[in-house]
Amino acid sequence: MNKVFAVGIGPGSAEFLTQQARAALEEADLLCGYTTYLDLVRDLFPDKPRYATPMTKERDRCLYALEQAAQGRTVAMVCSGDAGVYGMASLLLELAPGFPGVLVEVVPGVTAALSGAAVLGAPLGHDFCAVSLSDRLTPWAQIETRLALAAEAGFLLCLYNPASRGRSDALRRACDVLLTKLPPETVCGWVRNIGRPGQESRILPLSALRQEALDMFTTVFIGNATTRCIAGRMVTPRGYRGPEGAARP
Amino acid sequence: MNKVFAVGIGPGSAEFLTQQARAALEEADLLCGYTTYLDLVRDLFPDKPRYATPMTKERDRCLYALEQAAQGRTVAMVCSGDAGVYGMASLLLELAPGFPGVLVEVVPGVTAALSGAAVLGAPLGHDFCAVSLSDRLTPWAQIETRLALAAEAGFLLCLYNPASRGRSDALRRACDVLLTKLPPETVCGWVRNIGRPGQESRILPLSALRQEALDMFTTVFIGNATTRCIAGRMVTPRGYRGPEGAARP
Repeated sequence: MNKVFAVGIGPGSAEFLTQQARAALEEADLLCGYTTYLDLVRDLFPDKPRYATPMTKERDRCLYALEQAAQGRTVAMVCSGDAGVYGMASLLLELAPGFPGVLVEVVPGVTAALSGAAVLGAPLGHDFCAVSLSDRLTPWAQIETRLALAAEAGFLLCLYNPASRGRSDALRRACDVLLTKLPPETVCGWVRNIGRPGQESRILPLSALRQEALDMFTTVFIGNATTRCIAGRMVTPRGYRGPEGAARP
Repeated sequence: MNKVFAVGIGPGSAEFLTQQARAALEEADLLCGYTTYLDLVRDLFPDKPRYATPMTKERDRCLYALEQAAQGRTVAMVCSGDAGVYGMASLLLELAPGFPGVLVEVVPGVTAALSGAAVLGAPLGHDFCAVSLSDRLTPWAQIETRLALAAEAGFLLCLYNPASRGRSDALRRACDVLLTKLPPETVCGWVRNIGRPGQESRILPLSALRQEALDMFTTVFIGNATTRCIAGRMVTPRGYRGPEGAARP
């Protein structure tokens, strides 16, 4: 009681839930979250009271959860993927000081960078960056700067929110920035509906990624100079020496 | 059979296992891995045959797993955290073409960036990079370049392998690079033995982080200009507008 769990449930189906996340959802008297994410756990906890708000009402949702906890309830804020990566954990912790006595506990989960990578193979086998292409809370110029510097530094990239209503060209614009730093044949990949019905994926060069029409349920992976397509899988070696110990180019 | 699961088991105790990871470990006839990681799942599967090799024998370990799978066994390669992030998934996929008929399936897990972040609060609430400070497979000059460009671009940073035998000064050297780009009061944090007995953590400014004597079981978090310490938690807002909708500095 007097507690809000910020729970990362992974990409979708129950098989990606950690035991810790399942226990937190079980303990909760009330499940809060974006409608789509609450639907993902409906089968597990069909009778739990729930409070759903649309995508842009994050603040209202967090305030409601904290208010309910202040009144003695145990609340779970259900987040897709991880609770802290583009999730609700930070907003809950920012607002929590207004609700003395309420504890916010963060329960981590398998974020799309990890679950999507596993579908493609091992694209994030070395240092990587996660970048959201949503400019709802971040100026686009800053997103472009981050993409350019990350590519210049040889980071692998995982792109969240490659498109949404009204931003259909974000991925194309991001690819144009990356193409100023990376060769067009750079191995890339995307995964749509990770761990959900209709999961699909593709491995393709950066020049072709630029043409793809992807939606907001897709996660995109950009390789570095060592990333290869091996037997249909996207693979980035862990270091600069090959499996035989020979130096890589 | 004829299968190697690359399984991410999360930071340690069984509560961080996903249902998918547990099922893969159950299905396996043989558990392979670095000795320390195999010990983490010993209580769950005390009677499973196991093949353990020390830290630097990754290639031998992967070849053994693939050979056993080629002979008809189902093998689980146990990785701490996620199987693809500084784990064995990429090496298995690189070597797999030498073992026709063997399937490598990657099972994601909660990597230290996520589990450590949850202990501290929500340090990775915006775009972030993961960087390993180990120069065993990567030249140190490249690590320094990545740190500098990541900090310049305003990325949050999660540092893996901040120290190891013979590299006690890696964190100090990394902090010195970061201090050329970030103010000394930048909010940072570290977590040691995440999800294991003896877990400890600290939130401190970058200038103080430089002095810390941390070991290889520690994960380090570097904030950006928006990261704050709020009621003892390390919190990075999701965007550049505050919880009240006001623009941030």
